[in-house]
Amino acid sequence: MELTEGVLEGNRLALARCLTQVENDTQLGRAVLDELYPHTGRAHLIGVTGAPGTGKSSLVNQVARVYRQADGEFHSSRQLPLRVAIVAVDPTSPFSGGAILGDRVRMRDLAGDPGVFIRSMATRGSLGGLAQMTAGLVQVLDAAGYEIILIETVGAGQAEVDIARLAHTTLVIEAPGLGDDIQAIKAGILEIADILVINKADRPGVEATERALRSMLQLAHPIPRIYRHHHRIDIIEENGGSHEPPVWEPPILQTIATEGIGINDLVEMIDRHYQLLHDSGEWRQRERTRLQSELDLILQSTLVARWRSTISEQDYAEVLQNLVSREISPWQAVNDLLKGGFK
Amino acid sequence: MELTEGVLEGNRLALARCLTQVENDTQLGRAVLDELYPHTGRAHLIGVTGAPGTGKSSLVNQVARVYRQADGEFHSSRQLPLRVAIVAVDPTSPFSGGAILGDRVRMRDLAGDPGVFIRSMATRGSLGGLAQMTAGLVQVLDAAGYEIILIETVGAGQAEVDIARLAHTTLVIEAPGLGDDIQAIKAGILEIADILVINKADRPGVEATERALRSMLQLAHPIPRIYRHHHRIDIIEENGGSHEPPVWEPPILQTIATEGIGINDLVEMIDRHYQLLHDSGEWRQRERTRLQSELDLILQSTLVARWRSTISEQDYAEVLQNLVSREISPWQAVNDLLKGGFK
Repeated sequence: MELTEGVLEGNRLALARCLTQVENDTQLGRAVLDELYPHTGRAHLIGVTGAPGTGKSSLVNQVARVYRQADGEFHSSRQLPLRVAIVAVDPTSPFSGGAILGDRVRMRDLAGDPGVFIRSMATRGSLGGLAQMTAGLVQVLDAAGYEIILIETVGAGQAEVDIARLAHTTLVIEAPGLGDDIQAIKAGILEIADILVINKADRPGVEATERALRSMLQLAHPIPRIYRHHHRIDIIEENGGSHEPPVWEPPILQTIATEGIGINDLVEMIDRHYQLLHDSGEWRQRERTRLQSELDLILQSTLVARWRSTISEQDYAEVLQNLVSREISPWQAVNDLLKGGFK
Repeated sequence: MELTEGVLEGNRLALARCLTQVENDTQLGRAVLDELYPHTGRAHLIGVTGAPGTGKSSLVNQVARVYRQADGEFHSSRQLPLRVAIVAVDPTSPFSGGAILGDRVRMRDLAGDPGVFIRSMATRGSLGGLAQMTAGLVQVLDAAGYEIILIETVGAGQAEVDIARLAHTTLVIEAPGLGDDIQAIKAGILEIADILVINKADRPGVEATERALRSMLQLAHPIPRIYRHHHRIDIIEENGGSHEPPVWEPPILQTIATEGIGINDLVEMIDRHYQLLHDSGEWRQRERTRLQSELDLILQSTLVARWRSTISEQDYAEVLQNLVSREISPWQAVNDLLKGGFK
């Protein structure tokens, strides 16, 4: 169709339209995804997550700038400049304006560069919807030829972990002195981290933060650390699980994004991870894991939508009423609904 | 059964065992939930959420202490002391020990009080699993006679919002000076807030935080603010939607939890919200919404589990392989799997 041809030819307006269709999960959006899918698989997907206050957005901007410099101090193993897309997933409501605010800040930094595309996404809809939608947006940007796709999420809840699973390389951002229960956040998110970054490294407490991260890393993954697939369940490996993942100990880097300090080292580490993924065959394994996650998300939402269409609002309301009046328990209610003895 | 009788009689060991069964989603756990469900519906469920570093845990402890004081300075509209349960939902992995750490801190404060029960829960499993599990734990504690159940979550992702939907009254905790992208977090979470608390109010920047919160509240909900159900979709109201929700403007309170400052005022506000919910009939409406959320979560996980049992690992792996090799798109893969033209 014309719209997808536009995307493949580098038309930014066509790209923006496709992204909107995918974000709204329209019929056209699904057709777009079907048509563009064979053109995907080239982009390096980089997830960036961390608690609020760690300065993720500035860091993402800086990383994007490095990839855009053809003749900067930084020498990538890849030919620079690379085309960069940023997908910022904000846990803001559609009407709050938070996403728009974030865009404005970025625009100031990266404005006018045709090799950069930025898209913010607000949370909406049901469980799992966000990760599924993000996967769709990333596919469109991948097909559009963006070689680096930075996926930025705020927080460390299940939704963020699910989104991080979409990435080849995951950065977890920390900052010194964010308070006492930061410990809890870190532990959960460490499992998905390929590279740890302590941003705002000019703040007091940076040594304590690094010490804490290092000891938690050792606690979670005794050295030599084996790759993250080993901690997962339900992942089907190629060749009956004979794949031996490479050893990669997540490094801890320090940056001051607002002053551009430490960014070259960070991008070099991202590059090194990219090389390791390719050289070891882990890239293919992650593609598989990634696509399986996406498949499962779509399956789940489709199953629920299909079932919902088979039952009348009235029958559903009746079961709900019995639940509210404590005549039946939630599990009994589900049984009643799935038995389908209605009409 | 003996186990549930123990719970109803106030046996703490039986209670702990039931909670473990429910948390692990065993057959016994489901039977426990079925048996205890008719005894639920009395507890006041209070959700407490906010970014890391806001001091949520200390605040929750202090609120629990106020409800436990029979003859303190605080006079509730309810007869004190009330029995208090705390469910702390940590985004930590099972092996990280984060949850256990949190418990130890609490133990020091509330140790030895038989009217307090504390349970930490680590995230695990799939999408939606956490909220579903939390709902189950809360039901057991409700049946066990805990009149106040504090549900504490870290962060502001979709998972936290889903858990907050389980509560009658939701507190959102902020603290001054947590950084720039805290703005984004606040916007999303404001929709579910009944009471906003600025903890650590002795820190610099408290006025700026309050100003920011106030302007965001006005942006999100022009005064007079209508109750949150109006922002929801898919909620079936009793009597065909004739229910008129009461007007409640979320107040902004300041506390210093570590010194016990502002806690009485906070508990008084929680009490006032409780009264409003009851007097206006909104309590019943929230029960309905709450139970519908839970029903939908269980339906979703059951539908996926059922479907998974109908398809062989081999067929699934074949479709996944076609997806990885870009022969079919994710949506086409889902179509293939659901067509079930296998074997």
